[in-house]
Amino acid sequence: MLSEFDLIKQYFQRRRPGRAVLGIGDDCALLAPAPGRQVAISSDMLVEDRHFFAGADPRMLGHKSLAVNLSDLAAMGARPVAFTLALALPKADPAWLEGFSSGLFALADAFECELIGGDTTKGPLNICITVFGELSPGHALRRDAARAGDDIWISGTLGDARLALAGYWKEQALDPAQHEQAALRMHMPTPRVALGLALAAQPIAHAALDISDGLVGDLGHILAASRVGATLDVDALPAGPVLARQPLALRRRFTAAGGDDYELCFTAPVAQREAVLAAGRESGTAVTRVGRIEAEAGLRLVDADGKALDLGLKGWDHFTTA
Amino acid sequence: MLSEFDLIKQYFQRRRPGRAVLGIGDDCALLAPAPGRQVAISSDMLVEDRHFFAGADPRMLGHKSLAVNLSDLAAMGARPVAFTLALALPKADPAWLEGFSSGLFALADAFECELIGGDTTKGPLNICITVFGELSPGHALRRDAARAGDDIWISGTLGDARLALAGYWKEQALDPAQHEQAALRMHMPTPRVALGLALAAQPIAHAALDISDGLVGDLGHILAASRVGATLDVDALPAGPVLARQPLALRRRFTAAGGDDYELCFTAPVAQREAVLAAGRESGTAVTRVGRIEAEAGLRLVDADGKALDLGLKGWDHFTTA
Repeated sequence: MLSEFDLIKQYFQRRRPGRAVLGIGDDCALLAPAPGRQVAISSDMLVEDRHFFAGADPRMLGHKSLAVNLSDLAAMGARPVAFTLALALPKADPAWLEGFSSGLFALADAFECELIGGDTTKGPLNICITVFGELSPGHALRRDAARAGDDIWISGTLGDARLALAGYWKEQALDPAQHEQAALRMHMPTPRVALGLALAAQPIAHAALDISDGLVGDLGHILAASRVGATLDVDALPAGPVLARQPLALRRRFTAAGGDDYELCFTAPVAQREAVLAAGRESGTAVTRVGRIEAEAGLRLVDADGKALDLGLKGWDHFTTA
Repeated sequence: MLSEFDLIKQYFQRRRPGRAVLGIGDDCALLAPAPGRQVAISSDMLVEDRHFFAGADPRMLGHKSLAVNLSDLAAMGARPVAFTLALALPKADPAWLEGFSSGLFALADAFECELIGGDTTKGPLNICITVFGELSPGHALRRDAARAGDDIWISGTLGDARLALAGYWKEQALDPAQHEQAALRMHMPTPRVALGLALAAQPIAHAALDISDGLVGDLGHILAASRVGATLDVDALPAGPVLARQPLALRRRFTAAGGDDYELCFTAPVAQREAVLAAGRESGTAVTRVGRIEAEAGLRLVDADGKALDLGLKGWDHFTTA
């Protein structure tokens, strides 16, 4: 039977040189941040039957577990450096470990983000990743930095992940090819690291976050932290390619409050419109202007004609939802 | 019902100023390491029925969850700075959260270690803490730094945690007062941070680690990483006050391979004996010399007369043990 140490050695310890002073195998890993740079840190825990289905494809799960953490770095404008992985497994299953580690490392390598340590134990499947990035002081895209008059922008498209879930839950009839396409957005989100770095470099943007619990709820965090309000043009929200073929009411609901999007929502001064579009082009990421930050508190949803919309939406909460 | 955000705000978000540039509430926390210092990082995951009993006292569990992580910093000679907490909970139980957070923060405050972020979700009880410390380049107490001729030292005492487990498992009859005293060592370990800092400051010690899976197994990691061997005087191992009253065979077994000790095992040159004893005095931690690192590979256990002992021991492994 595969021991804990063999498991780490076989699937997670790699010989390639990294940026860490010391990686897997000691009591602690050691990082030496570049002089004057700050360390950005985020931690996400993924639980079976909560964040992913029992029996989920291990390769896609390895991708997603790291992707949601890299998305937090992207939302801060930080450059990925390293991560730790703590893993509780019901059993040491070589096929699962092979798939999970290959999905994890494919994404880690794409972002030059090194696995430097962690923990493995027996227990109900639980994946906890803590990720480390670097940025320059004063350049972080914080939630409390939105200002009245800022444009609100969205990266990529929204709602296909939520549509895939509706397909799994039989809320919504989808043909298999459409469901599969939408499901890829749910299982294989793309962290918008290059866009986050471009927005933070000048900096171009004021506030940013990544959309994990639905745009309306997550934008609410920016508004609360920045003590501002906003008007959001729901019909301007860019729907995913599968959702775009669905009826208007569903498009509005799933773009405005889908969840699992892992796109960036950010605010930037009107004077930076050209710079935002350039950052999108340079990072190969679509960016869409969807509303305006205002001094008046509250979030006002409007349609394409500027008329008030009440979609009866709320964000996802792990203890009060479902 | 308590929402995820209320739960964080009520039990884990505190208003006191800390050393972090940015704490709980954004996509990432931000740390600004002191110029030229390295960041030491360790992550431990605690699972119900594996690392603690179902129904465990939440205050002691809060203490232990952070203590085992601080113990890793101690073993590296790093000064605690901050930590993240990812928590999966079956339900948002105010009494449990009150106890857990108070035990956690009592220890965090004692070591000036700030909670800077994390995650909460619904799921089988799982506690994943990642801890951050600082140290000067070249001062880390690494596992690969033991040299032939070094003394082997142990902090504090060993085996009482394992004796408490034997009491819970009815392996060993213990009177209730004795069991309670031993159980405190199991549930409320003291991370040897001050000793670790003293040993790393000069540096006095060569290699170090914290004993979590039993001394013999853990010392084996130092020997393997350093490509050396050792002779360990089993009768010199300092037994905990409860274990010290037990028969010799049990004392030998539980000091040499108990588990859950969270004491430091470290090696230091013979010329540093006085300095090690002074570091022990200054940090208020007992230190005991228990053996010698040798060029010849393998770990040789001997009794007080220097005669070979075979205790038939092995370390704890989460996937092959029990």
